[in-house]
Amino acid sequence: MLASEETKEKSDIFLKALTLRTAADIESIKTDVSRKMIVILRVTPLAQSDSLELKNAIEKLYEFSAAIGGDIARLGEERIVITPPGVKVWRGTP
Amino acid sequence: MLASEETKEKSDIFLKALTLRTAADIESIKTDVSRKMIVILRVTPLAQSDSLELKNAIEKLYEFSAAIGGDIARLGEERIVITPPGVKVWRGTP
Repeated sequence: MLASEETKEKSDIFLKALTLRTAADIESIKTDVSRKMIVILRVTPLAQSDSLELKNAIEKLYEFSAAIGGDIARLGEERIVITPPGVKVWRGTP
Repeated sequence: MLASEETKEKSDIFLKALTLRTAADIESIKTDVSRKMIVILRVTPLAQSDSLELKNAIEKLYEFSAAIGGDIARLGEERIVITPPGVKVWRGTP
């Protein structure tokens, strides 16, 4: 009983909605994704305050995603989704 | 080798971005979530065309989510996220 509960808890994936305000937020986002969390990141605040910083931040997140074998995609104008390994963004039937 | 590949494939979860245009779209959304997909649903088009139909559609999705043991949450004004069992929306430290 206890063993199966532990197994269930271990396999749970969390989806976390966050806002990117500065490039310094990237480290905690990486940590979350490394801990098997899906991060849905609202980028509009940084887009408005510093579009070059946003561009660099997004590049770093794409590099990170490739390095860990996760996935990353744009979600409209406002958001980016970053997934851990085992979670893929559906891009339709090939 | 083949066995482990099969296991890996089975454990993959897909995240699908969709748009809710009419209440008739609900059935295919339910099917996707039942097939272990996370659906990120843009509801703005239906909100603009028929807000009562949207209200009913969202109620049905909440009922469906409770019935299958998944999770559901608002994501800003435009989107709703619906998850299969095993994926939970992070609501911060209790």
